[in-house]
Amino acid sequence: MSIENYLGDGKKLIDKVLAEYLPGKEAYPETIHQSMHYSLLAGGKRLRPILVMAAAEAVGADRRTVLPFAVAVEFIHTYTLVHDDLPALDDDSLRRGKPTNHKVFGEAIAVLTGDALLTQAFIIMTQSALMESIPAANVLRAANEISRAMGSGGVIGGQVVDIQSEGKEIDPETLEYIHIYKTGFFFKACIRSGAILGRAESKQLAALSEFGSHIGLAFQIVDDILDIVGDKEKLGKDVGSDIDKHKATYPALYGLEASKKQAEKLVEEGIASLQDFDERADPLREIARFFIQRTF
Amino acid sequence: MSIENYLGDGKKLIDKVLAEYLPGKEAYPETIHQSMHYSLLAGGKRLRPILVMAAAEAVGADRRTVLPFAVAVEFIHTYTLVHDDLPALDDDSLRRGKPTNHKVFGEAIAVLTGDALLTQAFIIMTQSALMESIPAANVLRAANEISRAMGSGGVIGGQVVDIQSEGKEIDPETLEYIHIYKTGFFFKACIRSGAILGRAESKQLAALSEFGSHIGLAFQIVDDILDIVGDKEKLGKDVGSDIDKHKATYPALYGLEASKKQAEKLVEEGIASLQDFDERADPLREIARFFIQRTF
Repeated sequence: MSIENYLGDGKKLIDKVLAEYLPGKEAYPETIHQSMHYSLLAGGKRLRPILVMAAAEAVGADRRTVLPFAVAVEFIHTYTLVHDDLPALDDDSLRRGKPTNHKVFGEAIAVLTGDALLTQAFIIMTQSALMESIPAANVLRAANEISRAMGSGGVIGGQVVDIQSEGKEIDPETLEYIHIYKTGFFFKACIRSGAILGRAESKQLAALSEFGSHIGLAFQIVDDILDIVGDKEKLGKDVGSDIDKHKATYPALYGLEASKKQAEKLVEEGIASLQDFDERADPLREIARFFIQRTF
Repeated sequence: MSIENYLGDGKKLIDKVLAEYLPGKEAYPETIHQSMHYSLLAGGKRLRPILVMAAAEAVGADRRTVLPFAVAVEFIHTYTLVHDDLPALDDDSLRRGKPTNHKVFGEAIAVLTGDALLTQAFIIMTQSALMESIPAANVLRAANEISRAMGSGGVIGGQVVDIQSEGKEIDPETLEYIHIYKTGFFFKACIRSGAILGRAESKQLAALSEFGSHIGLAFQIVDDILDIVGDKEKLGKDVGSDIDKHKATYPALYGLEASKKQAEKLVEEGIASLQDFDERADPLREIARFFIQRTF
C-alpha cells in the first residue's frame, strides 16, 4: 500500500468513528455538542491517531484494539487547536479551511469546547471497553504518557514560551524548546502510547521514542516552511501568519534551505532508529518520509 | 473528632501535599507554574478531596491510599474556577479573597493554566504510584467517573446552560439541571471514585451515589443562599454577584426559607441512604450536615 493510501485509509477510519465517541449534536445542551462536532469534524489529516495505530502495528498489535485511544488523541489535538485559536492566544480566524470555533460559537463556548474535548478524551481513554483486550495497567500507562506530553512540562509549556516569544528576538535554544515541547512531545507520546498499548518490549519502546522525537521536530520545521511557501487552499489556513505575528520559526532563524536539510536529517535519523523493526514498521517509516514531503 | 476538626485536618493534609504534585514555581516556563501555584494555593475548603478520602474510609480503606487521587480532584476543581472566572465566561475579579487568575497573569495564561491544571490532574490520576495499593482497573474506573462528571454531559454542560440562562426567566427544571450538572455531578463523582478506589461493593456504591446526589444539590442551594445572606469576608468572594448577573438561583425562584428547607431535606435524605454503613461513614454524615450549616 502506498503511503497516500495508508494515510487516506487511516483518516477514513478515524473520520468514520470519531462521532461515535461523543454525545450526538442533539444531546442537551446542544450548543456545546454542536461546537465539539464542528471542530472535530472540520477535517484534518488525523496524523496523531494514525501514529498511535501505526506504532501498535509496528510492535505486532492489531490497530483496531487501540482505535478508541487513537480517537481520544484526535480529541486532544482538536482541543489544542480550539484554545490556541482563541482571541487571547493566537487570535486565528481560519482553521482547516473553516472559521475557527470562537468565530462561530463565541469565546465562552470555545473555551468550554476545548475543555470538553480534552475531558472527553480522558473519558474515552479510561473507558472499560478499551480494557477488553489490553491490560488496565497498560491503558493507565499510555494515558499517563499522553497526559504528561500535554501538560505544563510539555505542549502547554511550549505554547507559553511561544506566546511569550512573539515579536521578540529569540535564540536557537528557545526556538527548539518551543518546537519540541509544543509539537514534538505530542507526536512522540502518540507513538509511545500506541506501542505501550500494543505491549512493546522496553527496547522497542526506546527505539520508537527515538523515532518519535526526531519526526516530531521534523514535522514542526516543515510546518514553519509551509507557512512561507505553502498553498493556503491546500493547508486550509492562512499562509504567512507566523511572519505577521513575528513568530519564531526555523526558516526565520536558519533560512529555508538549511531548515529543509535539518528536517530531512531528522527524518533519516528517526528512520535509522527503527533498524531492528521488521516490515510491520514500514508505515511508520513512510509516515516519517511523508512528514518532509508533504505540501499540506 | 468534631466536623470542624475533621475538615480542618483534611484541608491541612491537602494543603501540605498539593504543591508536591506539580512542577515547582521555578520550573521552566516559570509563568505557567507560578500561575498554577497561585490558583491552587489560594485557599479553599478542599471539600472535594476530603470527600474522596471520606468515601474511601467509609468503605474501610485507608485515606492515605487515595491521597494522590484526592489531590487530582482539587486540581480539577481549581481548573473549573480559573476558566469560569475568565472575562468571556463569568468575568469575576475576586476568588477565594484574591484577584482571579486572569487579573494577575492575563487571559492567555489563565486559559492555559486551566488546561494545565486539568491535564496535571490526569497525570496524577494515571501515575503508577497510585497503583501500588489499588488495582489498575479500579484506578481507571475512578478516573473515568471523574472524567464523565466533568464532561459536556456533566459540569461543562451545566456551565453552558448557566451561561445561556443569564438574564433570562428560567423554569425550575432548568435551574435544577444547572445545579445538578454544574455542581452535584462533581461531588457525586468524588464520593463514587473514592469508594471505587477503596474497593466498595456494588451495594455500597449505589448507596453512596444516592448520598452524593443529594448532598451535591444541597451544597449548591446553600451556595445560592450564601450569595444573598453570606459574608464577603468569610466567603472570599463578592456577595450578590448572582443577582447582579441575573443568574438563576434557588432563592430567586423559591424564596430564602423554602430554599433552606429544600437543602435540609436533601441532606436528611442523603444521610438516610447511608443507613447500612457503620461509624466509618460518620465523617460523610457530618460533612453532609456541614453543607447546610456552613457560613462560607
